[in-house]
Amino acid sequence: MDIRPRDTDSTWRRRAYSVIFESDTPAGRVFDIAVLVAIVLSVVAVMLESVQRINQQYGALLRAVEWFFTGLFLLEYIARLVVVRRPLTYAFSLLGIIDFMAIVPTLATLMLAGSRYLLVIRTLRLLRVFRIFKLGRFVGEGEFIVTALKASRFKILVFLTAVLTLVTVVGTLLYVVEGGRNGFTSIPKSIYWAVVTVTTVGYGDISPVTVLGQTLASILMILGYAIIAVPTGIVSAQMAGPRATAVPTYKQVICHVCQATDHRPEAEFCWHCGEKL
Amino acid sequence: MDIRPRDTDSTWRRRAYSVIFESDTPAGRVFDIAVLVAIVLSVVAVMLESVQRINQQYGALLRAVEWFFTGLFLLEYIARLVVVRRPLTYAFSLLGIIDFMAIVPTLATLMLAGSRYLLVIRTLRLLRVFRIFKLGRFVGEGEFIVTALKASRFKILVFLTAVLTLVTVVGTLLYVVEGGRNGFTSIPKSIYWAVVTVTTVGYGDISPVTVLGQTLASILMILGYAIIAVPTGIVSAQMAGPRATAVPTYKQVICHVCQATDHRPEAEFCWHCGEKL
Amino acid sequence: MDIRPRDTDSTWRRRAYSVIFESDTPAGRVFDIAVLVAIVLSVVAVMLESVQRINQQYGALLRAVEWFFTGLFLLEYIARLVVVRRPLTYAFSLLGIIDFMAIVPTLATLMLAGSRYLLVIRTLRLLRVFRIFKLGRFVGEGEFIVTALKASRFKILVFLTAVLTLVTVVGTLLYVVEGGRNGFTSIPKSIYWAVVTVTTVGYGDISPVTVLGQTLASILMILGYAIIAVPTGIVSAQMAGPRATAVPTYKQVICHVCQATDHRPEAEFCWHCGEKL
Amino acid sequence: MDIRPRDTDSTWRRRAYSVIFESDTPAGRVFDIAVLVAIVLSVVAVMLESVQRINQQYGALLRAVEWFFTGLFLLEYIARLVVVRRPLTYAFSLLGIIDFMAIVPTLATLMLAGSRYLLVIRTLRLLRVFRIFKLGRFVGEGEFIVTALKASRFKILVFLTAVLTLVTVVGTLLYVVEGGRNGFTSIPKSIYWAVVTVTTVGYGDISPVTVLGQTLASILMILGYAIIAVPTGIVSAQMAGPRATAVPTYKQVICHVCQATDHRPEAEFCWHCGEKL
Repeated sequence: MDIRPRDTDSTWRRRAYSVIFESDTPAGRVFDIAVLVAIVLSVVAVMLESVQRINQQYGALLRAVEWFFTGLFLLEYIARLVVVRRPLTYAFSLLGIIDFMAIVPTLATLMLAGSRYLLVIRTLRLLRVFRIFKLGRFVGEGEFIVTALKASRFKILVFLTAVLTLVTVVGTLLYVVEGGRNGFTSIPKSIYWAVVTVTTVGYGDISPVTVLGQTLASILMILGYAIIAVPTGIVSAQMAGPRATAVPTYKQVICHVCQATDHRPEAEFCWHCGEKL
Repeated sequence: MDIRPRDTDSTWRRRAYSVIFESDTPAGRVFDIAVLVAIVLSVVAVMLESVQRINQQYGALLRAVEWFFTGLFLLEYIARLVVVRRPLTYAFSLLGIIDFMAIVPTLATLMLAGSRYLLVIRTLRLLRVFRIFKLGRFVGEGEFIVTALKASRFKILVFLTAVLTLVTVVGTLLYVVEGGRNGFTSIPKSIYWAVVTVTTVGYGDISPVTVLGQTLASILMILGYAIIAVPTGIVSAQMAGPRATAVPTYKQVICHVCQATDHRPEAEFCWHCGEKL
Repeated sequence: MDIRPRDTDSTWRRRAYSVIFESDTPAGRVFDIAVLVAIVLSVVAVMLESVQRINQQYGALLRAVEWFFTGLFLLEYIARLVVVRRPLTYAFSLLGIIDFMAIVPTLATLMLAGSRYLLVIRTLRLLRVFRIFKLGRFVGEGEFIVTALKASRFKILVFLTAVLTLVTVVGTLLYVVEGGRNGFTSIPKSIYWAVVTVTTVGYGDISPVTVLGQTLASILMILGYAIIAVPTGIVSAQMAGPRATAVPTYKQVICHVCQATDHRPEAEFCWHCGEKL
Repeated sequence: MDIRPRDTDSTWRRRAYSVIFESDTPAGRVFDIAVLVAIVLSVVAVMLESVQRINQQYGALLRAVEWFFTGLFLLEYIARLVVVRRPLTYAFSLLGIIDFMAIVPTLATLMLAGSRYLLVIRTLRLLRVFRIFKLGRFVGEGEFIVTALKASRFKILVFLTAVLTLVTVVGTLLYVVEGGRNGFTSIPKSIYWAVVTVTTVGYGDISPVTVLGQTLASILMILGYAIIAVPTGIVSAQMAGPRATAVPTYKQVICHVCQATDHRPEAEFCWHCGEKL
């Protein structure tokens, strides 16, 4: 549902909406970037607070910063609610919920001590950075990636299902082969190991010790090493695709009789009506 | 050999076959998805049972679930045998054997205690998920991937042989260089290390300590890092290929006046002399 | 600003400039390669000195080598300053600063003992190796890579921002899930772990232990495994693109009789009317 | 130099040559595969002997097998020398030296006990497997990969030089940052760590502990994660390339005057001599 103010709304409201929600005016761009900077700063403050040594020394300051930004975000949230035509639609939209969740945890600490950890939700507001991408150059590029991924989504789903099946089967096998020892203490843990291996992450917190286990693991690794080619190939082909389609250039001429375009570069006559071009 | 019932068979049999073995009717689709859900649930039960803490608390329940699903799969297996025209052909087909193996381990525990671990074979039934992919959208996508991989199978085989030779040679070298210490206790183990390294998994359970060993390992890593480009390139080129080849399609027609070719697919008149094609 | 000597400058100066700064004369090429060899040798000397066992035995020799090369680089630096038209422009250019920084640390040790470690800056001079690439065959290839990367820079930036956001969100989640234990002692450290995981490096110095943590980590790994396809696809498509466009190069000539274009590069006669081009 | 027997040589010699050195006759193919099987078996014997437990039990048997194969390879080597026209040319060719080195170590153990470890050189004979690839289907595929890699060799060289410079600079930085502790005991060791990291292997035997070190490592990882796209893109583009190059098809006509080919599809006159086609 459309949350934009109606054309019949007061000027200041439409003005405020375009500043707060849109980014195609200078003021709107400044507002968006200011919000983004505030998000980054508040996230950095939360991060630093989690470091014990820094917390002991600058804890009070960081908590003050936290309250300052919470206040700021609260004001921003209220402004957003006031300005839109349908406050509830915004409030229950994904971005609306994230905006709300970014404020709640700090307020909640007044009643419940441990709830401050929920502040991590605020990092989700970082996702707003992608809205800024709507500015200028980034539109096309971001859309290009998203389009390529969307076009490949079924292929990627098939690929992921194949990987998950592989990981389940091999993980279970390793559980049996290693006999529940050497870290392979249960099937889910063994599947976790298989994921760590097939994705070539390889922590080494769990690794096979028996000869058969190491042999199976080697096969899994080489498989994982080779099948990375599949998603890469899918996305490469997808991304190379549109451009390839654009290659066959046509004569920049429109037939003056039938308006047909896309004539071959060397065409002297219209392919549609036979008229001299 | 064809296991489908003949046209002269009774209606209920052909009906049942289409429900149990095919997925192009609504009933067949429901059956397939029900079987898949049952497989996933039974696999999850087997997994949970392997977790000691859960086993101690809910062991009895999980074993009951296991017997329930085994009964279900037994019924399904019998139904499949009854419905097909050639029961033996089905029973000895790959899917038939997997279906059978999914039932046996639970029954076998009545006689032999340890055999329950063979239940892991049931995870192989998960492969049936790919049959579901035959439904709707996924056909083309799955086939696209399989076709690209099939077309590349010789290239991939050559690549894998090269990797295996590399891994054997470097693994043996490292065994000599590290002098059988630091985990490189035998040539097979050293080859295992080489596989872990060249695939960039890198557990770290075995890693070179001598200067020469680390130098050789570095070379192997950079090689492994670079040659991942080969399978990726093969599959990318394969996947991008058909589309690229298909792009400039022309009408398979030669102008009977000027012999010009390469007309646009929709052309009705020659682009060169304007004659009606 | 142009630092080349003017045409009115003395011959020896223009000569020296072409030897020291350019590489298209035999003398210039010899000079460049000599400088490169000196850089490699001096870097190797610094490296060997950092190995305690070698330092104890050959420390004096290595320090002598260091002073020798520092002298050489000092002479080279002075020569460069003398020869160019605008010494300050060169001195404050990137290469000029690097050239200067390669000399300073050794001289600084006369006053300050610890400053010798700054010698590592000398490794930056290795970047000069890319200047040598300007010779012959490498020009096109190096430029090809740089061009492809430049053309993809916005796409890569969008991709990197997405990865950084993902890493921040997942890292913070894991910090909360693992409860600050098992190495996840602070949010920045957890983000470091997320980077190690998503890039499939996987040291294993920090790895999740709780079931929820391992589940989230598995998802992150599979994501990291799949999204490597994105930059690869971007660069592949970019690299495959220009070549495809550039392939059909034609002679930049229009037939003065029939105005036909697109002649083969070696064409001497018009393909359309047979007139001499 | 040509080592094939002359046409004037005795028939048995030319026969034997074609069996031993070539693979286009049935007998030659059987011989090649027999040699390959013998190589694999002898390599497996060497491998098994390196496993202590197996060595203690079957050591005598394995050493007998080793002597048996050494005898076989000796006979084969002599046969090769006898059959070729220029024995010295063969003996000093790469394959000739490898063939010789596969025999020597076992014989050398009669005089020098430790030399048996040199048997690992025999694994190099495995490279002969690529000769078998000359048979049938594999020719084109193997050549396709080699051609693509050869065509990309300059680009790959530029890429490798960039990676090596990056690794040297970052490795040295980490040595300074971590202050020679936490495994970063010398610059070469730190460079080894940088290679392990940039290639996403990540053993974890050395990993940064300081905040600055972990930050730099994170940057290196993301760089390594992103630049894998470069070699992949190069090879993908190269492999997709030939197909692209094949696109601009030429007229299947040879000028009857100057024999020029590669005329444009629409050409009516020779591009080389202007003659009517």
